[in-house]
Amino acid sequence: MQRYFIEIAYNGQSFSGWQRQPNALSVQEVIEEALTKLLSKENVSIVGCGRTDAGVHAQQYFFHVDLPNTFDTEHLVFKLNRMLPDAVVVFNLRKVGNDLHARFSASSRTYRYFIHQNKDPFKTNFSWHFTQDLDIEKMNEAAKQLMGIKDFTSFSKVHTDVKTNMCEVLRAKWHRTEDRSIYFEISANRFLRNMVRAVVGTLIDVGTGKLGVDDINTILEQKNRGAASLSVPACGLFLWEIQYDFS
Amino acid sequence: MQRYFIEIAYNGQSFSGWQRQPNALSVQEVIEEALTKLLSKENVSIVGCGRTDAGVHAQQYFFHVDLPNTFDTEHLVFKLNRMLPDAVVVFNLRKVGNDLHARFSASSRTYRYFIHQNKDPFKTNFSWHFTQDLDIEKMNEAAKQLMGIKDFTSFSKVHTDVKTNMCEVLRAKWHRTEDRSIYFEISANRFLRNMVRAVVGTLIDVGTGKLGVDDINTILEQKNRGAASLSVPACGLFLWEIQYDFS
Repeated sequence: MQRYFIEIAYNGQSFSGWQRQPNALSVQEVIEEALTKLLSKENVSIVGCGRTDAGVHAQQYFFHVDLPNTFDTEHLVFKLNRMLPDAVVVFNLRKVGNDLHARFSASSRTYRYFIHQNKDPFKTNFSWHFTQDLDIEKMNEAAKQLMGIKDFTSFSKVHTDVKTNMCEVLRAKWHRTEDRSIYFEISANRFLRNMVRAVVGTLIDVGTGKLGVDDINTILEQKNRGAASLSVPACGLFLWEIQYDFS
Repeated sequence: MQRYFIEIAYNGQSFSGWQRQPNALSVQEVIEEALTKLLSKENVSIVGCGRTDAGVHAQQYFFHVDLPNTFDTEHLVFKLNRMLPDAVVVFNLRKVGNDLHARFSASSRTYRYFIHQNKDPFKTNFSWHFTQDLDIEKMNEAAKQLMGIKDFTSFSKVHTDVKTNMCEVLRAKWHRTEDRSIYFEISANRFLRNMVRAVVGTLIDVGTGKLGVDDINTILEQKNRGAASLSVPACGLFLWEIQYDFS
């Protein structure tokens, strides 16, 4: 068998998330079914670089798959694009060593969360419409407190089965784009479930003045999801980039 | 009564078009119902600047409405935006003379049709995915033949009740944006039903070589819808701008 990394992007609007699950359509499922048809095999399994929740988009996503050495991959990208729905695009594939793993070999991931403050009918599903005024400077002051190696229990969904909630945040910053449109970019070695949306919700409470800039440290120290603010909706969230050492 | 022009934009994806109709949700209907609630009147009627088909978007759209002189319009834009779905945004309103008409006073209209040639999961519903190579220079040569005052019967849906099919085309040009993404912009004093989509479908046949550049003149002369090519899908079409003498 030969291992391949395949780079894709997807519009999360039509899916229940990346992860295969009963009674709901996932990105993993449509890709596995397309590959299974192409290989005429009983079942092809793929391994994604991470989970994304229902409605979350991926501007960049990698999965790995092991294919028989005899399989001709020449037109695989073209064939997959033709078989997959409009909401999933395949960019390329590359041969990798069998020890490389789409999830465990990633050195860091970057997410972006988009917010538009003026109503815009063409941004629905790709950005969150939030109308209250926000103090971006304060939100960036607060975001600095997330940097470094910290315990993110307060920003994680309870009942997850990970062994540690320590994450190293490498970047965390709000950016303005157009008039009253902003996005938050965060990079870390790993993310806990629901972490970005809980972090964004909490920073927005700083931006409206509901929380103070220094409250972020207090919330981190409490190690309790109840200490942080509500999560923002999925529609504004994009998995933006995944870094591997080979790339 | 005082007449107002109200400027809006809408995402056509969720609607059966502008025009009110039984058993399907139209933009006109959601706006009339919101205005009726705000005015606590039995029925408010609005007059749009033109029809758009199901799935067609409007980057700019005007309608007029006559409101009682006693009605306070101060927060009308804000209130309408709060009541209307995400897919419709209200920009502003202005008092106009009672002889101004959203449809008949428009001196010209501009449409854009968007095409992306590389698969893109985030453009679905806002652009048409067409993969074959296109010769834009030839398409622009052909588009020049549409300019001026011509009979557009060959590019119009049959069974429409207009008295004349003469239109004056003021601009008709293809533009490149990103890599393998293009749009067609066309301005005219008036448009017949389905005209832009039939024109784009025919110009695409020039771009792929199925038709020659000079075939446009022949098609116009035949005054027969069967002479032109198939219409392209609604998703790529935007009503882009409406010109009035007052604006």
